[in-house]
Amino acid sequence: MKQNKYDDPGFFDNYSQMARSVGGLDAAGEWPTFRALLPTLREKNVLDLGCGFGWHCRYARAQQARSVVGVDLSEKMLARARENTSDPAIEYRQLAIEDIDFPAEAFDVVLSSLALHYVAHFDTVCRNVHHCLVPQGSFVFSVEHPIFTALAEQDWYYDELGERLHWPVDHYLDEGPRQARFLGHEVVKYHRIVATYLNTLIAAGFIINRLSEPKPTQEMLDRHPETRDETRRPMFLLIAAIKNGQ
Amino acid sequence: MKQNKYDDPGFFDNYSQMARSVGGLDAAGEWPTFRALLPTLREKNVLDLGCGFGWHCRYARAQQARSVVGVDLSEKMLARARENTSDPAIEYRQLAIEDIDFPAEAFDVVLSSLALHYVAHFDTVCRNVHHCLVPQGSFVFSVEHPIFTALAEQDWYYDELGERLHWPVDHYLDEGPRQARFLGHEVVKYHRIVATYLNTLIAAGFIINRLSEPKPTQEMLDRHPETRDETRRPMFLLIAAIKNGQ
Repeated sequence: MKQNKYDDPGFFDNYSQMARSVGGLDAAGEWPTFRALLPTLREKNVLDLGCGFGWHCRYARAQQARSVVGVDLSEKMLARARENTSDPAIEYRQLAIEDIDFPAEAFDVVLSSLALHYVAHFDTVCRNVHHCLVPQGSFVFSVEHPIFTALAEQDWYYDELGERLHWPVDHYLDEGPRQARFLGHEVVKYHRIVATYLNTLIAAGFIINRLSEPKPTQEMLDRHPETRDETRRPMFLLIAAIKNGQ
Repeated sequence: MKQNKYDDPGFFDNYSQMARSVGGLDAAGEWPTFRALLPTLREKNVLDLGCGFGWHCRYARAQQARSVVGVDLSEKMLARARENTSDPAIEYRQLAIEDIDFPAEAFDVVLSSLALHYVAHFDTVCRNVHHCLVPQGSFVFSVEHPIFTALAEQDWYYDELGERLHWPVDHYLDEGPRQARFLGHEVVKYHRIVATYLNTLIAAGFIINRLSEPKPTQEMLDRHPETRDETRRPMFLLIAAIKNGQ
């Protein structure tokens, strides 16, 4: 059974209260960076892996995508996504990301936001995405950064006064599951190093187009000085890859 | 003036006593990984940026490279390299890495071992390497890992008993010079994030072929249990890229 934490009622309630769950893409600090990595979506067939509440699906349609399929394992997430969507060109399917089985070359763009660090078999995902993309199609995704996932605690190291001293890294080169806490619940996240994300993509037939380890803009730092801590360690890793071939 | 720390007599003496300076490539933990990233060198024209004592130059010739040019800014390093080399097909030139100015398509392979984190302008290096490589030529290099260069101290965080608690990361997203200590001397290293290494290569016209964040082999861990700490944080980042084009 694939991990389906989002159908746990307590976890779902907590997730629903997160800024990004209420405010959508504009409340997600990494969204401007993610958006900049996307190709033009106009007239494109788009697949969203781990679509959650459907924010990215609706965004794609607002950019005049031809069709969008959103995939998520959680019934509760999809119920909310359907509730908030009135657009026959968006289809939601309940499915684990590892289990997608779309026809060859069905999509021009596959995107995934902060879902793939929950998936045990990234190589399977890469092969399946490659299969269902057209040649030169785009695969754009964000994950929690390996610096962020290395230690299960996912927290700063504090001094005795509670000040953040630095971000602790340990077990970085030991890849695999981490019993992390997120929103007050135990969740399994999969720690993979940067090299594994890239080499797995390349082995599946992708060309690396661009990476990002986003940091707050100067405007954000001026308006919200507390975001300064977000420059001390990367929280997210974003990768844009292209399916090799004519 | 480019940084020329290796002509500082005290620093040079300390460097000369490092295991890798005495024992050569086999004494460098990351060498098996570096070697595996190299293409076949037989009949190739090879350039080594920051060649130091010339170990990689001589290795290339032992692999039947046609010709090798080793570039280094340090007169002392090159004097030692020349002393240890009796091979007319290896040429050493005293030059800063940023200042290379070879003819177009002069080399099949450009390599660089642990030198580019001393260079301020990685984009210049990438453009110059691209210029002097044949199409489909290889650029393979190692640098200190961004997790390792983020904090100038480059050291573990210890508890009061002197035990290594974890590796501290801070200022990761603030790229630029770091006044680091190495071999008891002040040295300027340039901290760049993983995304910058890759995006700069891609912008210069390279395709990313493979990355490595090496860790000790199981055999090494069995023979030298103290190398276990090397799995706790990556010390090196290795990248193999190919010049795009026919």
